[in-house]
Amino acid sequence: MTEQEFLRQYNPTNYDPVAISVDNVIFSVDSRTETENYRKSDEQKLMILLIKRKEYPYINKWSLPGGFINQYETLEEAAMRILKQKTGLNDLYLEQLYTFGDPERDPRMRILSCAYLSLINRIEFDGPNSSDIAWFEIKLSENNEMTLASESVKLSISALAFDHAEIVLKGLLRLRGKIEYSDIIFNLMPEKFTISQLQHIYEIILGRKLLPAAFRRKIESKLINTGEFTSQKGHRPSQYFKYRSNIDKYRY
Amino acid sequence: MTEQEFLRQYNPTNYDPVAISVDNVIFSVDSRTETENYRKSDEQKLMILLIKRKEYPYINKWSLPGGFINQYETLEEAAMRILKQKTGLNDLYLEQLYTFGDPERDPRMRILSCAYLSLINRIEFDGPNSSDIAWFEIKLSENNEMTLASESVKLSISALAFDHAEIVLKGLLRLRGKIEYSDIIFNLMPEKFTISQLQHIYEIILGRKLLPAAFRRKIESKLINTGEFTSQKGHRPSQYFKYRSNIDKYRY
Repeated sequence: MTEQEFLRQYNPTNYDPVAISVDNVIFSVDSRTETENYRKSDEQKLMILLIKRKEYPYINKWSLPGGFINQYETLEEAAMRILKQKTGLNDLYLEQLYTFGDPERDPRMRILSCAYLSLINRIEFDGPNSSDIAWFEIKLSENNEMTLASESVKLSISALAFDHAEIVLKGLLRLRGKIEYSDIIFNLMPEKFTISQLQHIYEIILGRKLLPAAFRRKIESKLINTGEFTSQKGHRPSQYFKYRSNIDKYRY
Repeated sequence: MTEQEFLRQYNPTNYDPVAISVDNVIFSVDSRTETENYRKSDEQKLMILLIKRKEYPYINKWSLPGGFINQYETLEEAAMRILKQKTGLNDLYLEQLYTFGDPERDPRMRILSCAYLSLINRIEFDGPNSSDIAWFEIKLSENNEMTLASESVKLSISALAFDHAEIVLKGLLRLRGKIEYSDIIFNLMPEKFTISQLQHIYEIILGRKLLPAAFRRKIESKLINTGEFTSQKGHRPSQYFKYRSNIDKYRY
């Protein structure tokens, strides 16, 4: 038998059915200044984008924006297409995070999910501005307990659909591992930020407090002073910095 | 309709067929001393485990040890089972590397492959000791050109089956990225090694030469001096070191 003969008689339906989905873990930072409460103005929040499912299984549960791959697209193309369809977000840099393959992870059939990660610096989306898409504040303690909250909903992490709590945790731990030796955190930051705002995001991702003097020493070489200052009432003005380079900040 | 009713009428065969395989990228170091040629005794080799395919497609081509997942096992369980079946290697630490999903990567049907990575410190295998399994020396230049050679076969990297050249490159680049900020390289080393042997493995993975004094300064805090010396004719004896800790060396 030649290879061509072999391929002609190969029947894909002879095997156990399996399906592939992609799920997108999109992190951002809420940099809206809380003018009502000047004492909290540096407390920026780490946010994750979730959508409420409109179909079985896990109907009405919050979940990562995901869906099934099409036959003729790559995993990354599928991740981008689905993210755009479901949230309107487009032209993001998506990086493969991990593939989740527990046999019991989906009640429909054997479905493996390839998760993608993206870090963006805005919490708007251009898509259907519905109550079924929301940015949730996410916190991770040092012992990896997560909590989620949006402006209108408080969510137990175990209330997420499927194994999405596990996928979100994997994304956060990837972030935690990488911010210590790379510059990817600047993907999350607005163009201008104070050092204490940046420190706060580090602290959220690391799940622990950092010493300001040591943090400043470590981070300063990556920053450029804009010469501008914050102007919050009741505060001594802080200097605004920006990231020194755009090169490589996307390499998660 | 309830979720149970939805699940009862869900028909997995309604969708385009797709399959999942796993492929194992197993690296090691050839630490056999070349007593015939004492001048090369420090030139340890980075090796990768390949098997020759016995079936279509790509029959008789060298490939990564891989195969299809079973319905009731996780991706990692599949990777371990297949590695054991095909090479006899067992009880390795396998870490997920990346999932390859190009629609054209397999001529049979849409098959995605989830690649796993393992670093081991021996180039023996307990399995079928046939000519269809071999360790190939692998070299990667700074501009990412790979070459492969075993004791009996020289191989163009593009001669590997499927997209396995791309998978191997991904594994090597993961290794290259991680050896600069982690201790995973010690998974590859024999229990005792000289600093110049260790430097040589770094150089192979990084694809460039390092300055011995700077390398020693950087690496010394991770090593313990065993008090033993090499005894090679024609050489000034070198000290044998071992890795200071077993903790975390497996975290790729």
